[in-house]
Amino acid sequence: MADFQRNLKLTVAYEGTHYAGFQKQAGNILTIQETLENAVKRITGEEVKLTGAGRTDSGVHARGQVVNFLTQAKLETEQWMKALNAVLPEDIAITGAVEVEPTFHARFSAKAKTYSYRIHTGKTRPVFNRNFVYFYRYQLDGEKMRKAAEQLIGRFDFRSFQAAGSSVKTTVRTVHFCRLSRVGTELVFEINADGFLYHMVRNIVGTLILVGNGKLSESEFSEILRKEDRSFAGPTAPALGLCLEEVIY
Amino acid sequence: MADFQRNLKLTVAYEGTHYAGFQKQAGNILTIQETLENAVKRITGEEVKLTGAGRTDSGVHARGQVVNFLTQAKLETEQWMKALNAVLPEDIAITGAVEVEPTFHARFSAKAKTYSYRIHTGKTRPVFNRNFVYFYRYQLDGEKMRKAAEQLIGRFDFRSFQAAGSSVKTTVRTVHFCRLSRVGTELVFEINADGFLYHMVRNIVGTLILVGNGKLSESEFSEILRKEDRSFAGPTAPALGLCLEEVIY
Repeated sequence: MADFQRNLKLTVAYEGTHYAGFQKQAGNILTIQETLENAVKRITGEEVKLTGAGRTDSGVHARGQVVNFLTQAKLETEQWMKALNAVLPEDIAITGAVEVEPTFHARFSAKAKTYSYRIHTGKTRPVFNRNFVYFYRYQLDGEKMRKAAEQLIGRFDFRSFQAAGSSVKTTVRTVHFCRLSRVGTELVFEINADGFLYHMVRNIVGTLILVGNGKLSESEFSEILRKEDRSFAGPTAPALGLCLEEVIY
Repeated sequence: MADFQRNLKLTVAYEGTHYAGFQKQAGNILTIQETLENAVKRITGEEVKLTGAGRTDSGVHARGQVVNFLTQAKLETEQWMKALNAVLPEDIAITGAVEVEPTFHARFSAKAKTYSYRIHTGKTRPVFNRNFVYFYRYQLDGEKMRKAAEQLIGRFDFRSFQAAGSSVKTTVRTVHFCRLSRVGTELVFEINADGFLYHMVRNIVGTLILVGNGKLSESEFSEILRKEDRSFAGPTAPALGLCLEEVIY
């Protein structure tokens, strides 16, 4: 009966700097998933298995990660938020809690996700944002990068931007929006798609940087997409600039 | 001769979280001043005595602290910036360097300073900004606070907002501007004056919060200013929300 087992959906914000990524791992390794599961255990005594919408890597942040788990605890959602935020470390916070239907699955029910990637382009290294931006020391032509980024909108085989050695059933994804804007000394890249391949955003950003510094033209950028071969794309941009902004259901 | 002793002015940004304030102290205590002096020594071998415009407390940040020191080193100002930023820890950065006349003194030559104070008013605790905002868990009426803050503009005896036990020649200061605005989930207080008494900004903010939560009316706020007695004002707001934004010469 639904009364005995509730499915709880949480929205979670975290700074990924001090974690070995979202997903639980064997051994004495600090992950977001395990930290959340331990927090639930401290509150209810339950050993839950928590599912996350996106398995962010070490150093990657989230403003709107979504997780779900089954619980027999009878706490109200407001109480869940309060109790979890009281026991979680300062770099993880629950920003929303809601009870959902039993079939809801944070990962498989997701229709789309939005990621952001921030590049600090000021001439001196960032102090306040240092864990949240990639400090790129050289000139970048944001306008060229913006035009190249727009070519990603649509349904394509994104194999060229998938981490080497990955194996998934299909590498075709639909990018709903993709934009690059300048906010002060930062270039902010945002991309929304129905799904992401492993390292896809970081590989796209690494390649866009080659457009920004003049090593690739816009047309060479679209060729890379069409070539469907990882070896043509640029390097993987560092984890710290990446943030899972939102998951849409 | 000026050729042998140059007066160097640096603009410095830092996160104050992990420091016992700006000013050097006896004992094994980490301060901004000593960290900067050690960085100069690593580069030139010189034991300089560095003067700061504002002696920020432990946990207080700076986006535009200004310091100066005398040096015999013949580095160009660009080289100074590069070399210092290469040896300084990641929570301190030099954002500007310029040679100034021998009489320039970072503290005594300052005409005015601007401080900001950030209050996080969202219902969940901040994750990304957690070291830079004071998380106030209850409702605040920003409009009432803004009106009260405006009453501080002008030349007054600010004794009521000075830390108890301080002794300075005069407690009269001129506030040139003072404003409070809402930026997303934050209330941002900014104040520019020809000088600040010890804990003045934090005591003003602590008292403005009493206006925002309804414990003080606007007219009671101005009475506190007129009373020239610390015991009537509110508590000292926590250090972490405070930032030295700019020093004007």
